[in-house]
Amino acid sequence: MLQISALEKLVHELSKLPGIGPKTAQRLAYYVLKNKDTYPEKLKEGLERVQAEVHECPHCFNFTDADLCIFCEDQNRRNDLVCIVEEPSDISRIESSGVYNGRYHVLHGALSPLEGVGPEQLKLKELMLRLETEEIKEVILALDSDLEGDTTVLYISRLVNGKGIRLSRIAQGIPIGSDIDYIDERTMGRALQNRIEI
Amino acid sequence: MLQISALEKLVHELSKLPGIGPKTAQRLAYYVLKNKDTYPEKLKEGLERVQAEVHECPHCFNFTDADLCIFCEDQNRRNDLVCIVEEPSDISRIESSGVYNGRYHVLHGALSPLEGVGPEQLKLKELMLRLETEEIKEVILALDSDLEGDTTVLYISRLVNGKGIRLSRIAQGIPIGSDIDYIDERTMGRALQNRIEI
Repeated sequence: MLQISALEKLVHELSKLPGIGPKTAQRLAYYVLKNKDTYPEKLKEGLERVQAEVHECPHCFNFTDADLCIFCEDQNRRNDLVCIVEEPSDISRIESSGVYNGRYHVLHGALSPLEGVGPEQLKLKELMLRLETEEIKEVILALDSDLEGDTTVLYISRLVNGKGIRLSRIAQGIPIGSDIDYIDERTMGRALQNRIEI
Repeated sequence: MLQISALEKLVHELSKLPGIGPKTAQRLAYYVLKNKDTYPEKLKEGLERVQAEVHECPHCFNFTDADLCIFCEDQNRRNDLVCIVEEPSDISRIESSGVYNGRYHVLHGALSPLEGVGPEQLKLKELMLRLETEEIKEVILALDSDLEGDTTVLYISRLVNGKGIRLSRIAQGIPIGSDIDYIDERTMGRALQNRIEI
C-alpha cells in the first residue's frame, strides 16, 4: 500500500467487513482516496447515524430506531405466532416471501460450542419469558441449515417441549429454480426424506 | 432495510463503493450494526486519518503522507525514465513486478469524451512541464487496455512526438498462466501481431 500508514489503517478496517478480502479492501480504500473531498464525510455520517439512532427492539431484539420495531408495533400481525431467527437481517428474507404474518424473535446468533457461543450469549432467556407471558400458540424456527442452526433447533425444541406450543422448522430441500445437477448430496437426501405427496 | 432510515443511509453510502451492490452493502451494514460498539469508531478513525494525512505528491501526483511520495524521494531510481499510469493504485502493480526502477507520473484518469474527461481534467500540463524541465529520455505508458487508455496513449504520443524522447506502451497479449481457450479474440489478435521471435 505504498507505505502510507493512514491508507494501511483504512485497508485494515475495511478488510474486517464480511466478504471483503485485502485486495478488495485496497480497491475500496483507493475509491475513498479518489473521492476524499466528498465520500469519507458521507460515509462517516452514515456510521454516526447508525451508532446514534439504531438499537435493539426491547421486545424481539430486531434492530429499530423507535421504541419498538415495526413488527412488534404492527397491529395487524398475529400475536400467537412467533418466528425465531438468528439475525435481524434474516427478517427481511422472510418478509420478502410475503407468506408470514406473525411476530419475530431474534436470537442474535446460534449455539456454537466450538466458537464459545452458549445459551447465555443468545436471547434465549428473553424467548422463554415471551413464551411464558404471551399467548403464543406456534413457534417457527427459521435458523440456518448448518451445524449451529441444527444445535440451536435441538436446544429450543427441548425448552419448548411440554408447553403445549406447536413447534416447526422451515423446510429443507432443493431451492426453487435450481438445477438438480448442482444440488449437494445432503440437501438431496433431505429433499427425498421430506418429499411431499401430490 | 426494515424501514430504519439511518441503516438505509449507511447502505446507500456503502453501495457507492466500487463492486459493492445493494445486497452486499446491506450485508456490510448489518456487520457494522452487529459490531456497533467497536467497529464504526475504528472505521471512522481510518477515514479521518486518510482525510487528514493523505494527499497528492506535488511532483508525480501519487498519493503520499509526506512532502514527496516514496518514489520521487528514492535516490536509487533512474531520473531519465518515467512511467505514466492512470491511478495511484496502478503503481503497486508495476512495483510488484520488480522490473521497473524509474519514476512515475499519475494522470488521475484517462481521456473519455463520453464521460466528459478532457485533457484539462488529467495531470497532462504537469506532465508536459516535467518533460520540459527534467532530463527524461524515456516514457513508458502503462495505461489500461481499453478505449480510454487507447485514446490517452494517442493524445500523449502526439504531445511527446518530436521531443527526442523514447515513448513505449506496455505490451498487450495473453496473460501468463492463462488458457488459450479463454482468451478473447481482440487479445489474441494483438498477441499474434506482437509476436516475439525466439
